[in-house]
Amino acid sequence: MEKLQQLYEGKAKKVFETDDPTLLIVEYKDDATAFNGEKRGTIRGKGVINNQMSNRLMQRLSQQGIPTHYVRELSERETLVKRVSIVPLEVIVRNIAAGSFSKRYGVTEGTVFDEPTEEFSYKNDALGDPLMAPDHALAMKLCTRAEMDKIRSFALKVNEVLSDFWRSCGITLVDFKLEFGRLDDGEIILADEISPDTCRLWDSVTGKKLDKDRFRQDLGGVEDAYAEVMDRLLSQDEA
Amino acid sequence: MEKLQQLYEGKAKKVFETDDPTLLIVEYKDDATAFNGEKRGTIRGKGVINNQMSNRLMQRLSQQGIPTHYVRELSERETLVKRVSIVPLEVIVRNIAAGSFSKRYGVTEGTVFDEPTEEFSYKNDALGDPLMAPDHALAMKLCTRAEMDKIRSFALKVNEVLSDFWRSCGITLVDFKLEFGRLDDGEIILADEISPDTCRLWDSVTGKKLDKDRFRQDLGGVEDAYAEVMDRLLSQDEA
Repeated sequence: MEKLQQLYEGKAKKVFETDDPTLLIVEYKDDATAFNGEKRGTIRGKGVINNQMSNRLMQRLSQQGIPTHYVRELSERETLVKRVSIVPLEVIVRNIAAGSFSKRYGVTEGTVFDEPTEEFSYKNDALGDPLMAPDHALAMKLCTRAEMDKIRSFALKVNEVLSDFWRSCGITLVDFKLEFGRLDDGEIILADEISPDTCRLWDSVTGKKLDKDRFRQDLGGVEDAYAEVMDRLLSQDEA
Repeated sequence: MEKLQQLYEGKAKKVFETDDPTLLIVEYKDDATAFNGEKRGTIRGKGVINNQMSNRLMQRLSQQGIPTHYVRELSERETLVKRVSIVPLEVIVRNIAAGSFSKRYGVTEGTVFDEPTEEFSYKNDALGDPLMAPDHALAMKLCTRAEMDKIRSFALKVNEVLSDFWRSCGITLVDFKLEFGRLDDGEIILADEISPDTCRLWDSVTGKKLDKDRFRQDLGGVEDAYAEVMDRLLSQDEA
């Protein structure tokens, strides 16, 4: 698989064309940003961890019936994925109040919901990825109603599978962000990544934050937290 | 009906107890605020217009099967209403992009949607009435799922009835905000007010703004716009 022209450089990844028009190569960087790019830094080794973690989680989800863009890991930072047209919605699933939710609605961080919640943000950096009512996404034709139903149902299933898996690692899945894409035939599949950049992960016993909030909130030990999550995942994957 | 202790003073209305514990008196003020209270002013005669307009529109809605809190107009600024426990959600229905929607999502004001949209805001002044995903309202137990379904269905019906009526007055109903409340037996009914304070109303031919945006945007002729809307409503009501 030949790595050709760079298509796009995002905050945490670069994307390259390949000699197959239906496939792309994603390259994970160590760069970290937060608060819509206002805070910038580097988390050493993050790219390697996120690449390998996301690939393992995507394979796990695939086994549970969630179609994903994952094809093959090419190197410690590079993965071959299916080319999709991204649905410009971030889908956020929450099990426990934290982050923007707690701040926006004045709800104490750590409040456990009776049922998981789903919300959409408009994927638009210039506008700060604003929260969006489902009807707004339809009015703006970001997706069809059928696609939205599929995305919501996939996101809840992802939450079930990942909550169970992280629980087995001694980690509580607090919330996470997903992105979906369309294949040429219109099929909706899971894209982007699943990692401590895109999930809130708390130690199930101590409540210690093991995700990007350590970077956002200057809690220290950022690299160690990412490494710890990866270690626990690997132990469990092998178990 | 005796007007007893003041229960509450809001931005545009005062609310009083009566000698009947199931009824309240609402008194409409001329005070106007915008941008979550950052901008303050007076629109002379607004209280009289909003009181009488809201009452007429509520009666119209009631005839179309929407239960409302309206009981009886007591004076030009005072109305007797059913006492409810307010559901702390603002329900916004949009037919055309404007205001916070246009700003938040970068959509040109005036863009007509294929279908009306519904969204919820958390009714909380201290937090700035933030936009809220439907799942969030359920997670925070602001209402039950059955109540939400009823509120959404009422709001769409209100949109149909009011869009038709305003169209007959030569006015386009761009968007509006509703609030609902619970009676003691749990019944959900329409509360608050319906007026140029809570609706965007554009002249159907010229597009001239005939609502609180004239105050928000310092367009001048605020009092005249409110009076014009009232005149058109009265002509049509008598027709």
